[in-house]
Amino acid sequence: MNKRKSRSFKLGDIARRFGGELIGNAEVRIHQVSTLQSARSTDIAFVAQSRYLAQLNQTHAGALILGPEARTASSLPRIISANPYAYFARVAALLNPAAAVKPGAHKSAVVDRSARIAKSAAIGACAVIGKGAHVGAGASIGPGCNIGDGASVGTGSRLYANVTVYHECRIGARCIVHSGAVIGADGFGFAPEDGNWRKIPQTGRVVIGDDVEIGANTTIDRGTLDDTVIEDGVKLDNQIQIAHNVWIGANTAIAGCVGIAGSTRIGRHCMLGGAAIILGHLTIADHVIISSGTVIMKSIDEPGTYTGFYPFSSHQRWRRNAAHLRQIDDLAARIRELERRLAKAQGNHS
Amino acid sequence: MNKRKSRSFKLGDIARRFGGELIGNAEVRIHQVSTLQSARSTDIAFVAQSRYLAQLNQTHAGALILGPEARTASSLPRIISANPYAYFARVAALLNPAAAVKPGAHKSAVVDRSARIAKSAAIGACAVIGKGAHVGAGASIGPGCNIGDGASVGTGSRLYANVTVYHECRIGARCIVHSGAVIGADGFGFAPEDGNWRKIPQTGRVVIGDDVEIGANTTIDRGTLDDTVIEDGVKLDNQIQIAHNVWIGANTAIAGCVGIAGSTRIGRHCMLGGAAIILGHLTIADHVIISSGTVIMKSIDEPGTYTGFYPFSSHQRWRRNAAHLRQIDDLAARIRELERRLAKAQGNHS
Amino acid sequence: MNKRKSRSFKLGDIARRFGGELIGNAEVRIHQVSTLQSARSTDIAFVAQSRYLAQLNQTHAGALILGPEARTASSLPRIISANPYAYFARVAALLNPAAAVKPGAHKSAVVDRSARIAKSAAIGACAVIGKGAHVGAGASIGPGCNIGDGASVGTGSRLYANVTVYHECRIGARCIVHSGAVIGADGFGFAPEDGNWRKIPQTGRVVIGDDVEIGANTTIDRGTLDDTVIEDGVKLDNQIQIAHNVWIGANTAIAGCVGIAGSTRIGRHCMLGGAAIILGHLTIADHVIISSGTVIMKSIDEPGTYTGFYPFSSHQRWRRNAAHLRQIDDLAARIRELERRLAKAQGNHS
Repeated sequence: MNKRKSRSFKLGDIARRFGGELIGNAEVRIHQVSTLQSARSTDIAFVAQSRYLAQLNQTHAGALILGPEARTASSLPRIISANPYAYFARVAALLNPAAAVKPGAHKSAVVDRSARIAKSAAIGACAVIGKGAHVGAGASIGPGCNIGDGASVGTGSRLYANVTVYHECRIGARCIVHSGAVIGADGFGFAPEDGNWRKIPQTGRVVIGDDVEIGANTTIDRGTLDDTVIEDGVKLDNQIQIAHNVWIGANTAIAGCVGIAGSTRIGRHCMLGGAAIILGHLTIADHVIISSGTVIMKSIDEPGTYTGFYPFSSHQRWRRNAAHLRQIDDLAARIRELERRLAKAQGNHS
Repeated sequence: MNKRKSRSFKLGDIARRFGGELIGNAEVRIHQVSTLQSARSTDIAFVAQSRYLAQLNQTHAGALILGPEARTASSLPRIISANPYAYFARVAALLNPAAAVKPGAHKSAVVDRSARIAKSAAIGACAVIGKGAHVGAGASIGPGCNIGDGASVGTGSRLYANVTVYHECRIGARCIVHSGAVIGADGFGFAPEDGNWRKIPQTGRVVIGDDVEIGANTTIDRGTLDDTVIEDGVKLDNQIQIAHNVWIGANTAIAGCVGIAGSTRIGRHCMLGGAAIILGHLTIADHVIISSGTVIMKSIDEPGTYTGFYPFSSHQRWRRNAAHLRQIDDLAARIRELERRLAKAQGNHS
Repeated sequence: MNKRKSRSFKLGDIARRFGGELIGNAEVRIHQVSTLQSARSTDIAFVAQSRYLAQLNQTHAGALILGPEARTASSLPRIISANPYAYFARVAALLNPAAAVKPGAHKSAVVDRSARIAKSAAIGACAVIGKGAHVGAGASIGPGCNIGDGASVGTGSRLYANVTVYHECRIGARCIVHSGAVIGADGFGFAPEDGNWRKIPQTGRVVIGDDVEIGANTTIDRGTLDDTVIEDGVKLDNQIQIAHNVWIGANTAIAGCVGIAGSTRIGRHCMLGGAAIILGHLTIADHVIISSGTVIMKSIDEPGTYTGFYPFSSHQRWRRNAAHLRQIDDLAARIRELERRLAKAQGNHS
């Protein structure tokens, strides 16, 4: 667990700040959030799913956050909230505030004189800021980051170490970008000509809204002509690849290792499971859920959950089944033939 | 869209430079390339596929690039070319030249005194160049790049920010390497011994030809003993993993998130779709096309298109079908039994 | 091949050092390890699998490492070992020692004054070491690396260029971490609230044991509350994504592009093939082997090999089969109906 000293609050102060019904001792002092299993008497834990209620009688937590249905499931000091998970998120953020941004550029940073850096922004060691780039108030550019010419990072956004933002790309306010992310590299565009590939210059940008989080080593390519767009509130996990001219609607969440091919448009409030692959030039409706490991090769018009991966088994069984799978066209033909023969036979004898 | 000021050319000058038949006003001045939908009167757009011809009557473009079959599909000033997409690529490159390379090393760069850096090459801020490394004429090493001892980067190649090239690896001429790419890390080689893994030193190199493009966060491992080889004209998208001792033939194009396991040899002029997986020790012929999301587990001798991913459906339908898929061996047995019984029954009654 | 000058040893000295039975001239001087095909007279090659024995009569190697069953398969000077591959690994490491670590911090490195750096450790150019961070004896931090506040790197570990280790994370002794790896970025944790996502602070750490190797651009997220744990001897290839609170048992080896979702626990001595996907909250037993491209969506209790990917074919054949696959529920129903009718028909005629 993180050993950095955290702040502490009385349970009553927490309830006053974030609402909910407080039951029990309001004076309990809470130092940290924890799981039921690992909690100590100065920790607050939560239960958001009923299957975890059985663990309540073994926890050493000092206080709990519970849903209304679990109101009496424990006698510990507790806060009852309609959304215990979101409540927990608030308490966790209260107890573990992001490291403060220390205004100013480290002396080893290389900031072009034409860049506009807010006084309250921080530029880390060995970071490089290009011509005409803009870093907003309270923003933090981590060590080793590279902000290209004309790129901008909005108010309060935090880039961890070794992030690369190419020229002219825009990151909105209150975004978080993790290490190794690359924003604005060239889209993969080549015209075939005489057996070679002629590069299509990628002259669009990447435009990222507010409150977007981008995971470690995720890549978002700039558009070929128009921009690649990530709307407000989108959450991207690690190692996601977003190709040129993709558009991702607001508040969509995408798990790790997903790949989205060029010019595809993902709706708002979608959820994409890990390692899903969305082919190019498709449109995915709002509120679509795609399961992990699924390849989407045509557009989806209706909200719902969509799945398509091969169910695993023992290797021997997979070998047998896979051999038949290659013959499934033949199996279907044999069923048709059986149906024909049986109909004829029964005709003969009726 | 990219706001960087672009150059402008008269349509007639473009046709004179790149060929093709000019129809209409040769004096139209073209400032930028664009899509049909976004084009303004100073832009040139193109149509390479007949399904986009319907959009021609709504474009505000000032000029067009069309194929011979669309010669009369618009009355706008236009250039007729047998390959409108490649023609467009040329015009786009003319109007959007790569940023000029400013010769010299930034004062924050750390260049070993034994490194040989061409006078016309550029070394970015905080880049680190190792002992005996070589950077060719007109090459550009971006900020934060690391060029290992004895590595070389050829004439006119451009490495964007934060690229890592390990010791002794070679990158040819006119290559483009995007941020976060790692060239020459150790291949994944371990000998099992008493339940542990004993590391096999990876003493080969990565050798990359001319005119190769490598996408953001793509990794190419050095060979175990012999080299990993990428031939001329290969185009690699983002987040591709190429294992030790792989050989990729000239002019092959590989889309994002592809993984190629050790010692596999890919032919020339192949196209690999996104997230395809090629297992190790295989040989793929020239001119093979592999679809996105496909796992290739045996060698391919013949040109053609190869596919193998589970077709998605609604989650409920997938659950039903997947359950049967696990029983397909049993379904096949039941069909055989039906055939046997029907043959016997018909024998009985014939 | 690597051109760096290697050391040389007499075959007899090698056998004396590492054991095994020496047959033939003990005075042969060995300069390098090689494959059978590429070997020169100063190289030693090995055969670990009988299918490669046929190549023995064409090799130009000066000496060989063979298993007991191949004892007489060649007349070249040779060492007979029960595990030729591991023996070869030892010889390769002897001939190709890791580059020596030059103690001290490069003058361009930025090391916080509260960091504890062993005198024998090396800190590369433009590396940044945070407050209270610890770098152990003989460890090497590559150029451009970022070691966060309170993080630690154990004795003899080597981080190549441009590795990022977030605050408070721990890397054990004798680890190797390749370029672009990101250790300790935030896990992907958000609570849904009113159509938005509320971030869950990720307050756990990443704790990595001894003798772990981590490939290029691999990402390991910090835990939400408790830690993400990688036990001793684990080997991770490139571009692997390990989510928050995953636990990976000792000596497990994971190939490139694998994704492991949150809170999953992988056993010891497992082997995961390339691009396998393990969903979240699962438990995988010790000694489990998972094939490449396989999605694991439920826990595995028994050792064994597990597989599940769609077998590829020509695109046309895949189209036909995939259409039937979507109808497999219907095919099964038709078989049931045929069985019913045939039983009834035979009942009619019996």
